[in-house]
Amino acid sequence: MTTGAVPGASSMRAGARLDLTRLLNPRAVAVVGASRDERRIGGQPLKILRETAYRGGVYPVNPGYPEIGGRPCFPDVIAVPRPCDVALVAVSAPRVPEIIEQCGAAGIPFAVVLSAGFREAGEAGAQLEARLKASAARSGVRVVGPNCIGLMNLADRVYLGFGAGFRNPRLKPGPVAFVSQSGGFAFSVVGLADFEGIGFNYIISAGNEADISTLDLVADFLERDDVEIVVTYLEGIADGTRLREIGVRALELGKPILIWKVGNSEVGRAAAESHTASMTAAYTLYRTAFEEGGFVEIADVHDMVDAARAFQGRRLPKGRNVAVITTSGGSGVLIADACDRHGLALPRLGSETVQAIAPVAPSHTSFANPLDLTAQITGDADSFNRITEHVLADPRVDQLVLRYGAVQGAIGESWAKRLAEIVRGSDKPVLVAWSRVPDRSEPSLQILERNRIPWLLTPTRAAFAAGALYAFARKRTALAERRARGGKRLVARQPLELPPGRSTLSEHESKACLASYGIAVTREVLLSPREVAALEQPPVALPLVVKIDSPDLPHKTEAHAVRLNVNGLAELKEQAAAALAAALAYRPQAHVNGVLVSEMARGVEVIIGAINDRYFGPVVMFGLGGVLTELAGDVAYRFAPFDVATAREMILELRASRLLTGYRGRPPVALEALAEMLSRVSLLAADHADRVAEIDVNPVFVDEARAVAADALIVLRD
Amino acid sequence: MTTGAVPGASSMRAGARLDLTRLLNPRAVAVVGASRDERRIGGQPLKILRETAYRGGVYPVNPGYPEIGGRPCFPDVIAVPRPCDVALVAVSAPRVPEIIEQCGAAGIPFAVVLSAGFREAGEAGAQLEARLKASAARSGVRVVGPNCIGLMNLADRVYLGFGAGFRNPRLKPGPVAFVSQSGGFAFSVVGLADFEGIGFNYIISAGNEADISTLDLVADFLERDDVEIVVTYLEGIADGTRLREIGVRALELGKPILIWKVGNSEVGRAAAESHTASMTAAYTLYRTAFEEGGFVEIADVHDMVDAARAFQGRRLPKGRNVAVITTSGGSGVLIADACDRHGLALPRLGSETVQAIAPVAPSHTSFANPLDLTAQITGDADSFNRITEHVLADPRVDQLVLRYGAVQGAIGESWAKRLAEIVRGSDKPVLVAWSRVPDRSEPSLQILERNRIPWLLTPTRAAFAAGALYAFARKRTALAERRARGGKRLVARQPLELPPGRSTLSEHESKACLASYGIAVTREVLLSPREVAALEQPPVALPLVVKIDSPDLPHKTEAHAVRLNVNGLAELKEQAAAALAAALAYRPQAHVNGVLVSEMARGVEVIIGAINDRYFGPVVMFGLGGVLTELAGDVAYRFAPFDVATAREMILELRASRLLTGYRGRPPVALEALAEMLSRVSLLAADHADRVAEIDVNPVFVDEARAVAADALIVLRD
Repeated sequence: MTTGAVPGASSMRAGARLDLTRLLNPRAVAVVGASRDERRIGGQPLKILRETAYRGGVYPVNPGYPEIGGRPCFPDVIAVPRPCDVALVAVSAPRVPEIIEQCGAAGIPFAVVLSAGFREAGEAGAQLEARLKASAARSGVRVVGPNCIGLMNLADRVYLGFGAGFRNPRLKPGPVAFVSQSGGFAFSVVGLADFEGIGFNYIISAGNEADISTLDLVADFLERDDVEIVVTYLEGIADGTRLREIGVRALELGKPILIWKVGNSEVGRAAAESHTASMTAAYTLYRTAFEEGGFVEIADVHDMVDAARAFQGRRLPKGRNVAVITTSGGSGVLIADACDRHGLALPRLGSETVQAIAPVAPSHTSFANPLDLTAQITGDADSFNRITEHVLADPRVDQLVLRYGAVQGAIGESWAKRLAEIVRGSDKPVLVAWSRVPDRSEPSLQILERNRIPWLLTPTRAAFAAGALYAFARKRTALAERRARGGKRLVARQPLELPPGRSTLSEHESKACLASYGIAVTREVLLSPREVAALEQPPVALPLVVKIDSPDLPHKTEAHAVRLNVNGLAELKEQAAAALAAALAYRPQAHVNGVLVSEMARGVEVIIGAINDRYFGPVVMFGLGGVLTELAGDVAYRFAPFDVATAREMILELRASRLLTGYRGRPPVALEALAEMLSRVSLLAADHADRVAEIDVNPVFVDEARAVAADALIVLRD
Repeated sequence: MTTGAVPGASSMRAGARLDLTRLLNPRAVAVVGASRDERRIGGQPLKILRETAYRGGVYPVNPGYPEIGGRPCFPDVIAVPRPCDVALVAVSAPRVPEIIEQCGAAGIPFAVVLSAGFREAGEAGAQLEARLKASAARSGVRVVGPNCIGLMNLADRVYLGFGAGFRNPRLKPGPVAFVSQSGGFAFSVVGLADFEGIGFNYIISAGNEADISTLDLVADFLERDDVEIVVTYLEGIADGTRLREIGVRALELGKPILIWKVGNSEVGRAAAESHTASMTAAYTLYRTAFEEGGFVEIADVHDMVDAARAFQGRRLPKGRNVAVITTSGGSGVLIADACDRHGLALPRLGSETVQAIAPVAPSHTSFANPLDLTAQITGDADSFNRITEHVLADPRVDQLVLRYGAVQGAIGESWAKRLAEIVRGSDKPVLVAWSRVPDRSEPSLQILERNRIPWLLTPTRAAFAAGALYAFARKRTALAERRARGGKRLVARQPLELPPGRSTLSEHESKACLASYGIAVTREVLLSPREVAALEQPPVALPLVVKIDSPDLPHKTEAHAVRLNVNGLAELKEQAAAALAAALAYRPQAHVNGVLVSEMARGVEVIIGAINDRYFGPVVMFGLGGVLTELAGDVAYRFAPFDVATAREMILELRASRLLTGYRGRPPVALEALAEMLSRVSLLAADHADRVAEIDVNPVFVDEARAVAADALIVLRD
C-alpha cells in the first residue's frame, strides 16, 4: 500500500503466530484412509493430487492395500519412509484421534481431517471431537477440521481435499486468500469470483475448528507476502477479542479482510447454530468489531469481487471526497447517488481545475461534479485523459471514479495506455466503471489490469468499491489517531467492593463503584428508616428523590420503591415509609440497606450501559433516554476501554446527537463531561471484567454544566 | 400470471392510450438529414438499417444528395413516394420544427428526433424545444425525443437510432421492454443484462420527452402482449399522478415495472437537474408511489436481471412464507438472513411434511427451515426431488428457494427434468439458486429456462428475487382489498371558507375547516381582548391554553403567543394580555382575530401533515410527535384520499407505533379514531387540492378515548 504502515507497536505478538507454510506447501503428504475407489473421500484426494501434478511426495496409508494406483500403500503413517508435512485424514470418525496420535509419533506437523461425524452429528460426535482435540494437544499435531473439505494453494498447485471444488482446473492464482466456515459454499463462491476475474492463492475450509480456527487461518494469511486481501465467510466465532486484534492488524498491514458474516437474523442465527453449532454472539458486536478494524463487510459474490478489485489497486484515499467523470449524464447521476449512500462526498471542482479543463472540454459542459463530458468526447480519448489528469490533481479530490464511453478497440487502447501513465503520476485511487460486457481479450481491459487500475462492472459497483476504500482508509486514520493519543486513562485501575457470591449491587453500592472511577453521581445520603424519621431538615436540596436501596431490588420502579419530586420534609418521611412498605410487599425477603435520599437531577436523559459478552468481552453502549433508543435503535457501541476522543465520536454517531449539541435553540450540553463519563465507565468495565457482567447507568442527566448518574445497577458474575 | 387479474374497473381509460405499434414496427422509415458519412448521426441509421436487414422501406431524405449508398435520396419527406410510419430526424436542431410540420403534411405519424441542442443546451435550446412541441401539436405528428438515441424492436429486428448500442448484433429478444431517460446508459445496461441472459423485445431512449413521455412509453408497453416486464431508468417525471395510475395498471395486469430511479440524494438530484433538466420531486413521493403500485425498485443491473428472471416464472406467492432447501448448510444460513432482510418469513415445516420426507432424507437431517439435506444427498437427485415435492406441497409454504449441489451433467439433467414436472404440478413460485458459473449449454439450465423456472446466480440474489415476487403479490392483494372496500368516504365533499388572496388561515380558521370534515378539535372559544377582560369564569375546563389567533402568525410559539397550562381566571386574563403584547411585538402588522382559549388536551402526541406536491398532488404524512419523527425519519406517507383501513396500515407502519398500541403497560390509544382522522384529513386535502397547499395538524393528542387536533395550520395557494 502506498499509504505505508500505521505507526505504533504491532498488536500481535510475533511468537504467537501459527506459521502455516508447511501446511500450505507441504513437501510430502500422507493420505490416511486412502481408497482405490476414486469416488470415496479416501480415494478422491489421490486422484486430485495425481491430476493436478502435485510435485511433493504422496503416500497412501491403508493397512488393507499393498499399493494403490501403482503407488506403494503403507499400513500406517509411522511406516511412511520419509517425513510428511501433512496427513490428509479420511478414516471413519472414531479412528481419527488415534491417527492424530500416530501422526505425532511420525513427526507429521499438520493433519487435515476430512472425516465427518463429530460435533455436527450430535452428542456422541461432540465427545469424539473432544478426544480429537486432546489427541492434537498431546501429540502436538495441528489439525484443520474435522468435517472440512480441505485446502488449495493455487500458487504452488497444491490441492488437498475432495469434492467438486477440487475438480475445477481453471482457477487462477491471485493475491487473495479465502477462509470459510462452509466448505461447499466457499468453493461455489470462489468459482463465481474466479469467473469475474478474481484469483485466489489460498482457499481453505475450516470445518469444525477443533484445533486450528478460522481466525488462526485469517491471521496467518494476513502476514503472508503473497496475500493482499483475505476473504472470510463466517457463521460465528468463539474468540471476539481475537477477531478485534486481527482487525487492527489488518489496518496496520493495509490489507483488508472482506468479511461475509451470516447468521445475523433470528432465523439465520438458528440455522447457523444447527449447521455448525457455531458460536453466535449478537450481530451488533460483530458490527462493532468490523467498524473498528480492517474489515469490509460483504453480502454477495459481486461485493467480494468489487472490493477485491478495488484493494488490488493498492491505494487508499486520504478522505471522503470523490470526483466523478463520465460520458453519460445518466451514469453520473447514478454514481452520485451511490456515492452518497456509501458515505462519500462529491465536492465542487476547484476553480484552477475548471480553468485548466475548460479549453479541452466539449462546449456546453457544466463543470460540476459529476463532470459529464457527454458522448461528444467519446471519440477523443486524448481530451478525456487531459481532463482526467487535471481533475485527479485537484487538491479537493481524494479519489476518482470514471466511466468512459469508448473503452473498446483502438480508441479504448490509447485511452487506457495514457490513463495508466496518469495514474502512475498520482497516489490517489482511480476506479473505472467499465459498463460493458467484459471481454478479457480487450487490450484496454488488459492494460487496466496490468496497471492495477480497478475496473468495476457497473457504476453502482464502482461507487461501492470507492466507498470500501474510503471506509478502510478512515479506520486506518482513526487507529493511527488513537495510537497517537496514547490511550491515556482518565483514572488508574481502582479497587472496587465487589462482594464474592453476590450477583447484583444495590444502587448505592453501584454508584460507589462509579464514584471510585471519578464518575459524578447524584448527591445523596443513605439513611436507616430510624434516621429518616429523626431528620430535622431535608438532607439534600428540594425537590429530592426517595428510593429504597437494596441489591435485591434491581427493578426498583416496578416495586414502587422510587418516589420522585419529593418537596418537603414531611413528604420525605411519608414517602420513605411508603416506599419501604411497597418494596417489602413486592419482595418480602429483600435485604434493605436503607433509604436513599438523592438530589433530583435535571437535563437531557441519556443511557450508558456495559455488557461483558462471553465472546467479545466488555462493550459499552450509549443512547438517549426515552423511546428513541429502543424503538429507533439509535445506539452507539464501542469495546471497552476507550478514551475520551472515542467517546466523543460515539456520542456524535447517534442520529439524535443533535439533541445534545443545541437542538432548536436549546443550549448545548456538557459534551465533554459526558464523553469523560463514557470513557470512565469503559475503564471500570474493562478493569473489572472478571467480576462485572453488566453496568446500567440509567438515567444519566446532562445539562449545560455537567453529566450526572442518577441511577446505576451493577450485575456481577462469579 | 397464474394469479389472474385484480378485479375492479381498469384505472386507465382505453381511449387515452397511445398505441405505439406503428412506431415500434414501421412499414417504412424516412431518414431525414441522411448522410453519406456513416460516422455521422445522419449516416449511422442507414448503415444500421442495412446491416440489420430491416424489412421495411428505407427513404433517405437530404436535398444535397441524389442517392446515398445506391438508394435514391429525396429532397424532403413530402417527396418520399410511399407513406412512412416513422421519420428518423437527424437535422440540426433549428430545422427540426419545420421537419416535423413536413412530416405532418406527408402523413407520417411518428418522428424520432435524434438531434440534440434543445432543452439540455440552455435557454435558446429550450425555446427551440417549445417550437418543436408546438409543431408536433399542430401537425399531429407524435415525437420521440429530441436528444434521444432511438429505439430497437428486437422481436421484429427494427433498429432505429445511432451509437454503440445499435452495433450489438447479439442482443436477444425477450418479454422485457426498457424505457430509459438516459440513452447511452440504457444500452450499456441492456448489453450487460443480455450477457446475463435477459432478452428485450423493445428498448427505447425517451430523450427530452418534448412530446411522448417516458410514462407514455411505459404505459403502452404494459399493454402489449409480447411484454411481460417493463424496465425503466428514471431521473424524474413531471406527472406523478400518471406514474401512480401506471403503477396500479401494472398490478392489474400482473406485470411488474422494474424501476431504476436515480437523482435521489442531494448531489444526485442536482446532477439530474443539470443532466436532463428533469423534474425532481422528493424521493419520498416516488417511494410512496412505488410502494403503492406494481413497481420493483432496482439499483443495479443484477437487480434487474434477478427481478426479470423471477417474474418470467409467471407465478406469485400467496404470502410471505418461504421454504428453503439446500445441500449446503452455509448457503441455507445465508438465504435465511437474506429472506429476513426482504420481509420474507421461514415457517416451520408441517408435521405431515416432516413425516413424508423423513424416510427419504439423509440420516441426521434436522427438519428445520432452511432444510439442509447436506452434501450426502448431492448424488441422489431423485430423493432431493421427492423432498422438494413434499415441501412445495406444504400448505404453510408460499414459495420455495432451493440450491442443489449437482446441477451439472447427467445428475443435473435428471434433477431438472423431474423438478420441472414438480413445478408444473404446483402454482407456487420455485426459485433456484444456481451458485455455479452459468454455462448456457448445460442441459439442466436449459430445462429450467424452457420451463420458466427462475434461476438466480447466488443465494443472496435468489432471496432478493423471492422478496420481489412477494412484495408485488402483497401490493396486488392490497389493491384488490382497497377495491373490495369500495373506497367509502367518511364524509362527503364539504365547502370550506378559503378566502381568495389569502396564503394562510389562522389556527381557528384552520380548525373550522378540519371540523367541517368531522375532525375532532380541542374545545375552544375565540374571544376579543375585551371579552377576555370581561370573563367571569374560565370558558373551558382548567388547565387551559391561551393563544393569539391570527393568519399572520403561523409560528405562534416563536412569537410567544401560546401559553400552556393556564390554571385560573386571573392567570388567563394576565396571560392573554401578555401573549397579545408579545404577538404584536413580534409582528406589529399582524391581523389578530382574537384570543383563542382552548382546553388542554392530553395523550400521546402525533403529527398529521399534508402537502400538495406539484407533481404528485396531495399526500398525507403521519408521524409521532417529538424528536422521533424528525431525527429518526420514522414517518409514513400515503397519497390522498385514502380510507380508514389504509390509514390504519399507515399508523402501524411506524417503528414507533408500539407507543400507540400499549407500550410498556400503557393503555392502547384510540387507534380507530386516529385512523379516521387521517382519512378525513386526506379527504379534505384531496377535495380542496385546488386551494390547499399544506395542512399541518400538530400536535394531535390521542388517548384511550379519542384523537383531537390541538393545533392546525392550513396554507393556501392561488
